[in-house]
Amino acid sequence: MHEMQAVIDAIAPLDEVAQAQALARQETLTKPAGSLGRLEEIAVRLAGITGQVRPTVARKAVVVLASDHGVAVEGVSAYPAEVTPQMVQNFLRGGAAINALARQVGARVVIVDVGVAATIDHPGLIKRKVAPGTANMAEGPAMTREQAVSAAQVGMAVLDELVAQGLDLVATGEMGIGNTTAASALTAALTGRSAQEVTGYGTGISATQHQHKVQVIERALVHNAPDPADPLDVLAKIGGLEIAGLVGLILAAAAQRVPVVIDGFITGAAALVAVRLCPQVRDYLFAGHVSVEQGHRIILETLELRPLLDLGLRLGEGTGAVLAMSLIEAATRAHAEMATFAEAAVSQREDIGPDTPGDQRATFAS
Amino acid sequence: MHEMQAVIDAIAPLDEVAQAQALARQETLTKPAGSLGRLEEIAVRLAGITGQVRPTVARKAVVVLASDHGVAVEGVSAYPAEVTPQMVQNFLRGGAAINALARQVGARVVIVDVGVAATIDHPGLIKRKVAPGTANMAEGPAMTREQAVSAAQVGMAVLDELVAQGLDLVATGEMGIGNTTAASALTAALTGRSAQEVTGYGTGISATQHQHKVQVIERALVHNAPDPADPLDVLAKIGGLEIAGLVGLILAAAAQRVPVVIDGFITGAAALVAVRLCPQVRDYLFAGHVSVEQGHRIILETLELRPLLDLGLRLGEGTGAVLAMSLIEAATRAHAEMATFAEAAVSQREDIGPDTPGDQRATFAS
Repeated sequence: MHEMQAVIDAIAPLDEVAQAQALARQETLTKPAGSLGRLEEIAVRLAGITGQVRPTVARKAVVVLASDHGVAVEGVSAYPAEVTPQMVQNFLRGGAAINALARQVGARVVIVDVGVAATIDHPGLIKRKVAPGTANMAEGPAMTREQAVSAAQVGMAVLDELVAQGLDLVATGEMGIGNTTAASALTAALTGRSAQEVTGYGTGISATQHQHKVQVIERALVHNAPDPADPLDVLAKIGGLEIAGLVGLILAAAAQRVPVVIDGFITGAAALVAVRLCPQVRDYLFAGHVSVEQGHRIILETLELRPLLDLGLRLGEGTGAVLAMSLIEAATRAHAEMATFAEAAVSQREDIGPDTPGDQRATFAS
Repeated sequence: MHEMQAVIDAIAPLDEVAQAQALARQETLTKPAGSLGRLEEIAVRLAGITGQVRPTVARKAVVVLASDHGVAVEGVSAYPAEVTPQMVQNFLRGGAAINALARQVGARVVIVDVGVAATIDHPGLIKRKVAPGTANMAEGPAMTREQAVSAAQVGMAVLDELVAQGLDLVATGEMGIGNTTAASALTAALTGRSAQEVTGYGTGISATQHQHKVQVIERALVHNAPDPADPLDVLAKIGGLEIAGLVGLILAAAAQRVPVVIDGFITGAAALVAVRLCPQVRDYLFAGHVSVEQGHRIILETLELRPLLDLGLRLGEGTGAVLAMSLIEAATRAHAEMATFAEAAVSQREDIGPDTPGDQRATFAS
């Protein structure tokens, strides 16, 4: 059993020496300084995360945490709650979007039942159900504080098992009908924005349903009065079991110096909770993409994370995070495999020598 | 020898039947309609390009056309012209950014000397030199019309050879010290924008050098008076041999129904010329990324192409195009491999049945 505070205490700053060495290597590679833009920044930050001057991300996994939400009874989703276990079965058979995209990038798909309101039996499923779904946050707390901590510990345990098996990069995924309602409530409570501002259309509700969803979130915020200075209180009262699991997964990854790719709105809300619990976590995160969900953009701005992709996705599951993994791996390959000017006998700029690196970064900051 | 007009005449509209079938398939897959955003659009357009309802892009290549530019003597680049053959050698040894990124996405790297001002001997090099670089466009036409056509025919021949070997998706790349000057001149002439508006900092010149570069481009435009109604006249007078080769490659790809991923400013300028020669070409193009070069954004707006990536790249070689290939391949995998609602026994939306697809597209247009 992981003690949450012990995991938080294990999260250290990035390795500045490795970062500086990686940056110095970038300046010697056969390209104009800074011309690979954010790929260079990725490689340098991965060096700081891992302590490796030439980091690799060969061993990749996406962890999809699934659970149900009591608030679904309020009619906040376009889909019935039975879709949660149905989609978990789809993941386990390899037929969902996340499976196809993970095959494309060479990532393992790890499915965890942390709170689905149905019994699912499949040899590929990691069964760590804390409760069969949350309670309806519109009428009271979604979880007890103990349940939220237990779900976070599930995420921590799964991450540690993956590290033991070999893990260089982890993407966060989720499935849970009703979970954009929880993510909206969390985002409102933790950023101080209104429910109206942070609430989107989820899987595709009408304008009338959207207004109802906003009102449900407002009720949840009023009923529960979560304390924004106590992120665990917020998480328990208006979060979800898969979101709590993701918080634990993210904290454990940072503690283990494993870079984390955040997906969309739900995993973004989990990242926001994790960063509120431990601000240092932010440096271990990559924002895979920006979702169509308006609350996601607010989260990324709050965390000062720039998304790698903006492709109009609003599916979740980890799809945007997994797509971004290919860019992160590409950044590591360019960083590790390119020849230096000296190795390739390529002439330097005419106005500078090899001893004045990085002079263009100021001009071309991206 | 390809007759350019015959190739242009062979370029047909997209296959609307295959596109409609691919769109219908998307609506049955286990995800909310439209939730994979641009990945869905990519899969549907690829169906229209290839005529295949489930297109694949397994066989990928990036073609890097290299040549020198007479205008380099005007001091428009931060790097000496000798870097063109040096970087070609680097490509051939596998040490450049394009090599590392192409390995990451599983694309062949095809290097073509269409006009390098040095002799390069390497078994991996396709030697089709039309001339040892162009003439200085600031003092007269860069090429004769015949040279431009010959260079375009090189691109056409290379594309056809690749198709004969098996090719599902081609990325465009280039190397040529001075070629952002040619791309800027082409963009100004073909869009009617001023040299100041379309000219960026290339590999990294100073503000003073930038102003000089703008003046050189203005001189080239005044001296040569290219006729914007005659794209070949513009290409010959103020283009480059690699740009002309790229024009031919793009035209031949469209004629062969092979989708083309455009890279940055130089390949974008070639795409602009190709579309002016044959507007239908535009539907065969994907914009891999948007470069830091300001002229590139103007080209993409003119062509009404939305870039897939915006990562602050300004390297060229085909790097942004190759990175985007992984997204395009991911789109085809999701499209081809995902289970349908019926196959996976997943419940549909509560307010609609399977017969009302796509109702969310209008709401969530990205």
